[in-house]
Amino acid sequence: MRVHHDRFEVRTHGQGLYEITDQLEAKIDRCRVRNGTVTVFIQHTSCSLLIMENADPTARRDLEEFFDRLVPEDADYFTHGSEGSDDMPSHIRMALTRTSETIPIVDDRMQLGTWQGIFLFEHRRAPHMRKVSVTIIGE
Amino acid sequence: MRVHHDRFEVRTHGQGLYEITDQLEAKIDRCRVRNGTVTVFIQHTSCSLLIMENADPTARRDLEEFFDRLVPEDADYFTHGSEGSDDMPSHIRMALTRTSETIPIVDDRMQLGTWQGIFLFEHRRAPHMRKVSVTIIGE
Amino acid sequence: MRVHHDRFEVRTHGQGLYEITDQLEAKIDRCRVRNGTVTVFIQHTSCSLLIMENADPTARRDLEEFFDRLVPEDADYFTHGSEGSDDMPSHIRMALTRTSETIPIVDDRMQLGTWQGIFLFEHRRAPHMRKVSVTIIGE
Repeated sequence: MRVHHDRFEVRTHGQGLYEITDQLEAKIDRCRVRNGTVTVFIQHTSCSLLIMENADPTARRDLEEFFDRLVPEDADYFTHGSEGSDDMPSHIRMALTRTSETIPIVDDRMQLGTWQGIFLFEHRRAPHMRKVSVTIIGE
Repeated sequence: MRVHHDRFEVRTHGQGLYEITDQLEAKIDRCRVRNGTVTVFIQHTSCSLLIMENADPTARRDLEEFFDRLVPEDADYFTHGSEGSDDMPSHIRMALTRTSETIPIVDDRMQLGTWQGIFLFEHRRAPHMRKVSVTIIGE
Repeated sequence: MRVHHDRFEVRTHGQGLYEITDQLEAKIDRCRVRNGTVTVFIQHTSCSLLIMENADPTARRDLEEFFDRLVPEDADYFTHGSEGSDDMPSHIRMALTRTSETIPIVDDRMQLGTWQGIFLFEHRRAPHMRKVSVTIIGE
């Protein structure tokens, strides 16, 4: 049994879901853990993590639209907004989704369902470099 | 320290919470890890995982009703719906709850609070067979 | 590789976010695991866990206000309410946030982003003692 830490960055250019499944698979291949878990951890509070349907892009667009409507930018009670109108909604959309996920690694691969992809969910409009931390534990 | 992978299936017959605490306890008993963690991972994007109050069924019904109202089936902006009107809401309700949870195992048992039960949350109306992945790490 | 279990309690005095980052760092210091993961697990269904912006308190107040409005106490369809009007909303707000998070430990410290703090999110109005379970796996 051993622990292997790694990291990578994702360049985002506006709100939406960015698939990171392939980057994660590459990290797992490289560390040669055959059986265990991978913990994906987002080091930010204005973007988040989500395992979502990866086949049909309309499903992702509808999901993004749902969050836009559920957490509008112009709520009159927001007081935190020093970074703009997408500042506070980004923290709330993060709170409603995920910061960490732990996924089984079985025989060298993540044991995802047929339609599952792993996504970074960007909630800010401006371009950002986002840090994704990857911890693999296993044998 | 070792890793033990397992899986089981849950037959669902409509939307709602299905308790899986006993199935998980049985998997832990069988692999004889006394101290560590169990990671429960749902291999789907139209059902999810939730640790919820397991004593009073009215709490679960109210929670289901809340999600029905928060994510209605007839939102006019949904474009993804090839599998029916409960298709897109199921992905959104999944996104708002959980895909993985990691639970401590202490002295052979999950260290749950008095009122915590572990549930698969089915978001589709038609019957489904759902795959739950279980990874136990410990000694 | 080894497993280290620990626990601590948080005394809450009303709804809101209570930072627990320092208590977690102290537990990690004490068990002398240099590299691995820490799994934080909340043993309750009426409070939850959230990794949130820890710099500006207005961000936390706006987030609390959002959840107050999203899950109102007086929903006419709630049937579960034996413990008062904040009973059912507390379970729903828990379901929308987190019960467990797994965070990397790198060189003796949690690998949090610059603005990330770890919070217990209390959803009940009355004072409570809340149990937080901590499992550290690593070497």
